[in-house]
Amino acid sequence: MTRGTLRAEIISIGDELVHAGLVDTNSSYISQQLGALGVAVQRFTVVGDGPDDLQDAIAGACRRADVVIASGGLGPTLDDRTREVVAKVLQEPLRFDDDSWQQVLAWFARHIRTVPDSNRRQAELPQSATALANSVGTAPGFRVTVHGAELFVLPGVPREMKVLLADHVLPALQHLGALQPTAQACLRVMGPSEALLGERLGEFMLPGRNPAVGITASGGMLSVRLVGTADSEAAAATLCEQTAAELRPMLGEWLFAEGLKEVPELVLERLVGQQRTIAFAESCTGGLCAARLTDLPGSSQAFQGGVVAYSNAAKLELLGVPKALLEEHGAVSEPVAAAMAAGARERFSADCAIATTGIAGPAGGTDDKPVGTVCFALATADDSGSTDSKAWTVRIPDLGRLSVRNRAVYEVWRTLLL
Amino acid sequence: MTRGTLRAEIISIGDELVHAGLVDTNSSYISQQLGALGVAVQRFTVVGDGPDDLQDAIAGACRRADVVIASGGLGPTLDDRTREVVAKVLQEPLRFDDDSWQQVLAWFARHIRTVPDSNRRQAELPQSATALANSVGTAPGFRVTVHGAELFVLPGVPREMKVLLADHVLPALQHLGALQPTAQACLRVMGPSEALLGERLGEFMLPGRNPAVGITASGGMLSVRLVGTADSEAAAATLCEQTAAELRPMLGEWLFAEGLKEVPELVLERLVGQQRTIAFAESCTGGLCAARLTDLPGSSQAFQGGVVAYSNAAKLELLGVPKALLEEHGAVSEPVAAAMAAGARERFSADCAIATTGIAGPAGGTDDKPVGTVCFALATADDSGSTDSKAWTVRIPDLGRLSVRNRAVYEVWRTLLL
Repeated sequence: MTRGTLRAEIISIGDELVHAGLVDTNSSYISQQLGALGVAVQRFTVVGDGPDDLQDAIAGACRRADVVIASGGLGPTLDDRTREVVAKVLQEPLRFDDDSWQQVLAWFARHIRTVPDSNRRQAELPQSATALANSVGTAPGFRVTVHGAELFVLPGVPREMKVLLADHVLPALQHLGALQPTAQACLRVMGPSEALLGERLGEFMLPGRNPAVGITASGGMLSVRLVGTADSEAAAATLCEQTAAELRPMLGEWLFAEGLKEVPELVLERLVGQQRTIAFAESCTGGLCAARLTDLPGSSQAFQGGVVAYSNAAKLELLGVPKALLEEHGAVSEPVAAAMAAGARERFSADCAIATTGIAGPAGGTDDKPVGTVCFALATADDSGSTDSKAWTVRIPDLGRLSVRNRAVYEVWRTLLL
Repeated sequence: MTRGTLRAEIISIGDELVHAGLVDTNSSYISQQLGALGVAVQRFTVVGDGPDDLQDAIAGACRRADVVIASGGLGPTLDDRTREVVAKVLQEPLRFDDDSWQQVLAWFARHIRTVPDSNRRQAELPQSATALANSVGTAPGFRVTVHGAELFVLPGVPREMKVLLADHVLPALQHLGALQPTAQACLRVMGPSEALLGERLGEFMLPGRNPAVGITASGGMLSVRLVGTADSEAAAATLCEQTAAELRPMLGEWLFAEGLKEVPELVLERLVGQQRTIAFAESCTGGLCAARLTDLPGSSQAFQGGVVAYSNAAKLELLGVPKALLEEHGAVSEPVAAAMAAGARERFSADCAIATTGIAGPAGGTDDKPVGTVCFALATADDSGSTDSKAWTVRIPDLGRLSVRNRAVYEVWRTLLL
């Protein structure tokens, strides 16, 4: 393997992924983690638990690639067959790995449960494989050489997969020593369409450019991702920063955040850093702002609480929105948004509060206020300490209810990061 | 192609999927749609825009399968290469399809935009391909026979892919007429571990059984999925119902819902059917119950609103929890949960209200109340119409903050479905 030419593939295994509508998120996560080490993934394969298809997929990936990361099919039940299938590809028997079994027993002991006999299957490995300890679940992973490729097999549960990837796979790839030092940067953008942003940044996105610049869209936000490679991580980071410095003036007001962390994390860090507390008054976002912020450990340092005021009665009773405002302007209006934010700030004794009220669809749109019309307000303290509430309206393109709601949540994050 | 043996594969194409962390949701959607027609998909491949990898992936899938549905790589820019690569696999040239070009022009005319020259590429097709009209975007799809397989190539944008799949692919598959009628059923279970449930249902999960029975875990809930095949859909449904009837007594109190719909949808249907309104008082679930219910169109028929009462002050001020209760029992206690639910029911004038208060972690656990301890309460009207609030505690295994929160949300759904 020469520097920077490591070929990698990813396999996600499970009938539930191929047939039952469960979306494979493991491959994308693994690819991102490998990318950060400078390993470019060529292909993902998603395959069911059927032994013939699975055998063909594993053997094919191991023939094409230098490194294959597979996840799934390590559970205790008979429909989990990855161990047997890898052994079959290798034409070798399974062995019972007592160390792994002791770890399974210890896991159950910590969780005060008796061990079902079927869990013994989880301690079986192909003869030539090395077990990869699982500190957060019962299924150990394993590592084995197949058709000249290094194959890592991890549990399919995302939480366990992530731990084993960090504990075993990423360090092993670094030991392989053939990696090109890389650095990444990410600029978060709201406002333009993906096509418009693509035209604006066209010259930066040509193949072969270093750092590589790519645009991805998710939830109404665009991410401009930079991946630079150089002889050292520091040099790669410098390349990324040079390109970021060229991009910033081109992005202008569209740019609202930078950094590899997820946006809600950046928001929480900002609030905690400023020692500001926050509350939400959510109508059309229906609790999403509160849910995404409280996904994060430590969110109670900044987050006081929120009201999901779906009905008009709730806006009146719980946020003190004057009935006259609701009657005169309607629930989706800037005066009502301003009153909701002010009400939330005062009731939760928070430093600031944000309100959302809008039409997420599919029903409820009118000519004046089509689906996608969302009013926002930010309430803060004015110089005298009383509440000052500013409202504004965004017309979000109606690409479906979930899209409108997600885009509205990002407008909240953008407001808090500006 | 004989009845029921149609082999199908799906390919999703794009560098953003393989490298940039964008999750491929197209494959899962297409697989579900094909599954409903009785076409079982064997494999998904996700591959970048690089021509060598793409050519290998397309040729491989067409050799293995009878039907291949690919999406992506049909855009106007030079890094979209699916048309050229399919032509190369077929060893034939591209032709300019004037009908497709007229459709691209008409699309731009409707959207009052000038046509960039680069869009002419979108009207090019492999010589032997048939264009598939796109009524919602600029990129036409195409259909062509490759290595004996029927290959359908669709745009990668999910909204456009879905329209072309419905307009062209599903009708074509029905014309192929070789489909095995199938039916599905799903039983939702909470309580046992996956391994324990697997042991209980072991005999049902043996390979080759019809209906096939599989277990999948997500968010603290287990789903037992049945897929039956027969000479008619009705006969397949009868097979599923026979197996479901055998499974129900084995699942006992673990079983809390049935049906192919997502659990929050079942909850909303139940509430709307009973003409009951609901409110939430959420502490540890932080707005997740409200967010998941309001993801659904029509949720305002039942959902009045919620309070995310993260701080003690919020429990006091917005839900009227007596200070003495908080001081005597602590925020995570059954008396406080009961008071939260009662407060939410009254303030939102709802028929019922559910409260959650617990320790999601990673911090905050004690010997008495370790991480994962969650108190719930359900407030309803008693015979006299005043509020009756019942509380209970669940010790959720501490498998991480998100896991505890998700499992707590399912406990709420379970309560509403029993």
